[in-house]
Amino acid sequence: MRMRKKKHAEERIAACGELLVTEPQSFSGKWREAFAARLERCVDTAALSLEIGCGKGAFILEMARREPETLFVAIECCREALLLAMEKVKDAGVPNILFLHENAADLDQIFAPEEVDRIYLNFSDPWPKARHAKRRLTAPSFLALYARILKQDGFLRQKTDNVILFESSLENYKALGWRLSDLTRDLHASPENADNIETEYEKNFSAKGFAIQAVTARKP
Amino acid sequence: MRMRKKKHAEERIAACGELLVTEPQSFSGKWREAFAARLERCVDTAALSLEIGCGKGAFILEMARREPETLFVAIECCREALLLAMEKVKDAGVPNILFLHENAADLDQIFAPEEVDRIYLNFSDPWPKARHAKRRLTAPSFLALYARILKQDGFLRQKTDNVILFESSLENYKALGWRLSDLTRDLHASPENADNIETEYEKNFSAKGFAIQAVTARKP
Repeated sequence: MRMRKKKHAEERIAACGELLVTEPQSFSGKWREAFAARLERCVDTAALSLEIGCGKGAFILEMARREPETLFVAIECCREALLLAMEKVKDAGVPNILFLHENAADLDQIFAPEEVDRIYLNFSDPWPKARHAKRRLTAPSFLALYARILKQDGFLRQKTDNVILFESSLENYKALGWRLSDLTRDLHASPENADNIETEYEKNFSAKGFAIQAVTARKP
Repeated sequence: MRMRKKKHAEERIAACGELLVTEPQSFSGKWREAFAARLERCVDTAALSLEIGCGKGAFILEMARREPETLFVAIECCREALLLAMEKVKDAGVPNILFLHENAADLDQIFAPEEVDRIYLNFSDPWPKARHAKRRLTAPSFLALYARILKQDGFLRQKTDNVILFESSLENYKALGWRLSDLTRDLHASPENADNIETEYEKNFSAKGFAIQAVTARKP
């Protein structure tokens, strides 16, 4: 038998086991309470922030470092990216991030109504063809779902380099009564960029002269 | 303005434009005819093989080199992986591979009944939790879909390192009347391994003493 040099994907996932919540429905309505011990100060009134499509995890890792009293939940349906993100967070030893291998369409089974403070959408798949518009993470069906799980004053922050996705997102926010602020079509040239945390995607492909578009949308 | 050093994802996708079929429905029933010029001998009776979830593309690239008279279609829903696979195939200059950024659930809108000769499933996401079983690419709903688009003597070849996925796949094949052959629970130790093309996943994580399970299933 050959030597085992690298670990199996399942074994690597298992090694990140305490970061991966495999039965997230069981925490619906009690995320803060269940994971308060992971926060800098153990409070069950902490903010709860989601990133939908965390990719390799650079954004949520830096967010969690900056906000040690917020509980972060990273959702990723692509297993390879999820694994890399979990390993990055495990190596960094940052305790206030949990991971879910789930589809965004199931979010309302995972979070109770008005349980969530903030949702981040970073460089989501633009699905630029019109016939794929329903798959975009800002399609009306997804916005309805986010509106259910967000608090009254909860908001969503979106960044993208894709014009088709950004313009269709703005149309959907407006049509459904979301209130927009901090809208920019060139984030890296705007004053807000001082606080911007770049994702891997943003660093690799988009920070070299391309315009990043961003907006904050508050639920109706 | 900073120098543009790396290309934008959309721009990189555009550079692979002729490999990406963005309106695949329009080729339903005429894939061979439409793309015969990409084959070593221009015939419209060529074999048509799909890989569902091509990842970074090593498997389908090597298959296409070995079978220059077969038309290969690689389907991947994860955009980053799709991009890497397309760039690999473009650099290799292998003409008989096309790519689709689609979900497997839409395959029957893309291929006509009995249009496809072979389907490859390599290291598909195991979705090991029972409540996610419907998402596995060998769930009964997917097998019904494959049975519609496969020819009468068409078959599916599956490889995985995940026992839960493999055993549930075998149960589903049997329950739906698929005929099994070349079943192994340790592919790398079996005589068939001589022809095995390793995927990136297989090379990185699974070839170091782990058992790869494989099976061929012919449609009912």
